[in-house]
Amino acid sequence: MVSKSQIKLITSLEQKKARTKNKLFIVEGIKGITEILTSNYKLDSLYTTEEIFDVPASKTNLIKEADLKKISRLKTPQTAVALFKVPEVKTPDLNGLIIALDGVRDPGNLGTIIRLCDWFGVKTLLCSKDTVDCYNPKVVQASMGSITRVRVVYLDLSQVIKDNPEIPVMGTFLEGENLYEANFPSSGILVLGNEANGISRELERLVSRKLNIPQFGDSQNTESLNVATATAVILGEFRRRENY
Amino acid sequence: MVSKSQIKLITSLEQKKARTKNKLFIVEGIKGITEILTSNYKLDSLYTTEEIFDVPASKTNLIKEADLKKISRLKTPQTAVALFKVPEVKTPDLNGLIIALDGVRDPGNLGTIIRLCDWFGVKTLLCSKDTVDCYNPKVVQASMGSITRVRVVYLDLSQVIKDNPEIPVMGTFLEGENLYEANFPSSGILVLGNEANGISRELERLVSRKLNIPQFGDSQNTESLNVATATAVILGEFRRRENY
Repeated sequence: MVSKSQIKLITSLEQKKARTKNKLFIVEGIKGITEILTSNYKLDSLYTTEEIFDVPASKTNLIKEADLKKISRLKTPQTAVALFKVPEVKTPDLNGLIIALDGVRDPGNLGTIIRLCDWFGVKTLLCSKDTVDCYNPKVVQASMGSITRVRVVYLDLSQVIKDNPEIPVMGTFLEGENLYEANFPSSGILVLGNEANGISRELERLVSRKLNIPQFGDSQNTESLNVATATAVILGEFRRRENY
Repeated sequence: MVSKSQIKLITSLEQKKARTKNKLFIVEGIKGITEILTSNYKLDSLYTTEEIFDVPASKTNLIKEADLKKISRLKTPQTAVALFKVPEVKTPDLNGLIIALDGVRDPGNLGTIIRLCDWFGVKTLLCSKDTVDCYNPKVVQASMGSITRVRVVYLDLSQVIKDNPEIPVMGTFLEGENLYEANFPSSGILVLGNEANGISRELERLVSRKLNIPQFGDSQNTESLNVATATAVILGEFRRRENY
């Protein structure tokens, strides 16, 4: 059984306000839940139609398919829904290469970028306060467990940059230097901007190295790369230079 | 006004079967429609709540918001829905660098890869017959107009490779050579596989150069890169080597 108040709580967690208030976030499906269970994240409660998780009975609610449908945000619910505790915000580690996102709004993009950070060994991801919340269920899903391994910190990006004048700040701009020809440090803060508007004017003034992924196709109508695929190309090039 | 039979036709075009039968596909929204109108694609008919397109009156249906809702697949319909003619299948141009997709199922991934091909100057995209249809509305949307500039051809990938033994065939595999250390030709066919299962066994036997994007993070739990972000990293490296 799932009580009405439980349904209300769980479904409310699609909203950031409710996640902030309750310090909880939702994960759905066997694979996603298992990944987060093996991390340092703390389980609050599990709602499942099958007893297949290694979770104390006190935290497990065995439920029927019909109840799962009431608490799932998916069209085809996947066995279980778990609530995990949102961890305390940590101080960002500003060593090495750091990605900073300025106003990224699409949950799929943020999830993909978190997964890229994990693969390319970027331990800290700084997000402006208007970047989509990393505990949004779509972000958690798209990150494929990488959210537990990348430290995502929301803060005032301009302030961090001003407070750490020794850290080089790079960013992607259409008028930037060719990524493959420019000289740039292998560590520092790399800023990527909003899907439609790029990096904000305020932050642009703080970027000392402007970079651009050159276009190899010849059409003038081609849209610039999506922020997540641009991140992939740039991280590849940073790590290649550092290691090969 | 939109007649019942028009509504039936338009909504049916979400299905591949109906697209194949009617040789039509849907595009929604001002930006998407304008992009395709400026290409060689032929407009069949336009349904719009505002007369803002440069389209002959004979093909324009000025409709009400309520009618737009009936024909749109979006929660928040965007001014217009257009039907375009699916172009005749062309013979693939096998010169230069070619991407081949083996069973990519996610429309967002295919759309993103088409957009990447456009940016990186890859003119031909070969798709196995079980790859998602490129005229799926989600693919068209994610490709951001690039679908009109990249030649997407569905065929038997094994057969093409066997018929063209002089073309080098590369592919991504977890056990492949490090992308940044391997020597590989700058042109040829680069195969990318299905989201869950990678490249099929049959095709694997035909790949002469296996490549891998090395992992720089240290976690053993990290999921391998998504097929679209992997394509981004690899295309960047191919073009860098060729040009810089």
